[in-house]
Amino acid sequence: MATSETQIIQRFFRDLGALRADVVLGVGDDAALLTAPAGMQLAMTTDALVEGVHFRGGAPPRSLGHRALAINLSDLAAMGATPAWALLSLNMPQADEAWVGEFANGFGALAREYGVALVGGNLSRGPLSITVQLVGFVPHGTALRRDGGRPGDDIYVSGTLGDAAAALLLERGELSATPPAQEFLRRRFEYPQPRVLQGLALRGVARACIDISDGLYADLERVLQASGCGAVLEVESLPLSPALREALGEGAWRLALAGGEDYELCCCIAPARALKPAGAAVPYLEGLTRIGTLRSEPGIELRLANAVTQFSHSGFDHFRE
Amino acid sequence: MATSETQIIQRFFRDLGALRADVVLGVGDDAALLTAPAGMQLAMTTDALVEGVHFRGGAPPRSLGHRALAINLSDLAAMGATPAWALLSLNMPQADEAWVGEFANGFGALAREYGVALVGGNLSRGPLSITVQLVGFVPHGTALRRDGGRPGDDIYVSGTLGDAAAALLLERGELSATPPAQEFLRRRFEYPQPRVLQGLALRGVARACIDISDGLYADLERVLQASGCGAVLEVESLPLSPALREALGEGAWRLALAGGEDYELCCCIAPARALKPAGAAVPYLEGLTRIGTLRSEPGIELRLANAVTQFSHSGFDHFRE
Repeated sequence: MATSETQIIQRFFRDLGALRADVVLGVGDDAALLTAPAGMQLAMTTDALVEGVHFRGGAPPRSLGHRALAINLSDLAAMGATPAWALLSLNMPQADEAWVGEFANGFGALAREYGVALVGGNLSRGPLSITVQLVGFVPHGTALRRDGGRPGDDIYVSGTLGDAAAALLLERGELSATPPAQEFLRRRFEYPQPRVLQGLALRGVARACIDISDGLYADLERVLQASGCGAVLEVESLPLSPALREALGEGAWRLALAGGEDYELCCCIAPARALKPAGAAVPYLEGLTRIGTLRSEPGIELRLANAVTQFSHSGFDHFRE
Repeated sequence: MATSETQIIQRFFRDLGALRADVVLGVGDDAALLTAPAGMQLAMTTDALVEGVHFRGGAPPRSLGHRALAINLSDLAAMGATPAWALLSLNMPQADEAWVGEFANGFGALAREYGVALVGGNLSRGPLSITVQLVGFVPHGTALRRDGGRPGDDIYVSGTLGDAAAALLLERGELSATPPAQEFLRRRFEYPQPRVLQGLALRGVARACIDISDGLYADLERVLQASGCGAVLEVESLPLSPALREALGEGAWRLALAGGEDYELCCCIAPARALKPAGAAVPYLEGLTRIGTLRSEPGIELRLANAVTQFSHSGFDHFRE
């Protein structure tokens, strides 16, 4: 007899992630029961990974478990929220215990790192796809939204950009790189580090924030549209990893602008605020890179070597050719 | 140019469902922002529909929108929770506006009926599958769990059983029925009515509750396992629709026991409680049918014409052959 649905849930998904006192009833009933903290708003998000769209067939299950949670943690990071409870909906063609075990390991390790409890979910047969829902908390009125940017704000990003997109080019054989660079870029794609702590440090500091999942250019456009302004980006300021520079040379900045799957934060900070990171927030804010400025004129102007440069890109869209 | 992801979201999913004052920020940012009510626990669930597993290719999209929400409403009903906020994760092979419009109509109509706001979600290209997450509220300590049944409790179910399973047999050509019976059974499959109001009426009345999604027999077994007891079921008491009786005749009770996709409630009530439904709960509790009794001896004993009868069934399991 093949492994049953109930056996898989009991063996791999019960008590996965952090143990939390606010979980009254976790995996195993019709719904989870949870105690929300007083004085906080809930931040709630969902994101999915689909085979053939977000990952190739045969992708390492541990990476998929990590990424499925990481992309949702990144959404909460962009709101400045503290993550708490996750639901997992997993469709898979068969019950491969080794696969599920590795998947759960990847999911569980990241969940424990950020204090997330898996409180429920759903298993179904079907083409492989993974959907995670994540709930977190943010004090009333302090969430980082997309619509708070104002002309004059400095634009910052966390980490380095374009690495995950380069990993996909490598995988498709459209790029070559030295083995250490390949390894670095591949890990950046397979194990993105959600910027949860940076997001928390940006509360009360940033006026707008978004996570970069569809590429900096496309996601910054969303902030600009919500905030009703435009931006000037200094291309030479874009933070690029040595591996990306090595693999792409002069053209690296284009991938940093257009590449998806980065899961870094892009935020807008009033110049007066940016100069004074204080206390516990310092190490996280010091890791941000200033890449440009908001302005009232709409659109994104790119500056390279003190001249305006051209760039055409429509951002990733699932349903636009 | 094909319809873009953002256009679909703006056109079909923004402000879908009920307008709720506790939704601070809905569709359109990295996460939704919500205000949880004081003194309540949150009940949180997720359930999915996968093409080829839960519905056939070409199934009517309005029904899919309805069912995707209904199966989650049913989970909250089984906890006695009041539904509030939904997230929708939709994977589809292409952006067919007519399809999406009908899907959203089905989802939205049911959401408005039960006061549910769609607060966020995710669209992706991929094989058609629909995952919904639903959050609701229940006063502290009043949720209907699976583990509260005690020997001597009466077992009740809502509605009629087996209709959805009969609809699937009709669809596969393994059953025939008159056109009115076909129509009735098909609607029971395509538009299940989640027993949200019954679930609320059962708070403080039932000691255990579950929703019947994998068949009465399999789901009652889950209650028995959690509650540490067994049950006697009176087969002649199973509530059967006239259409099911007409189509299946003498064998109808087997489908009522084993058939999935009913989305009715099964609950256990101490006899002293069952006799006194009071106030607003009366119409909902009067619609329940008593089908048996919990006992300390484990297992399910079926009684038919005052004799013990045999029944072998393992319940639906996605990964067991």
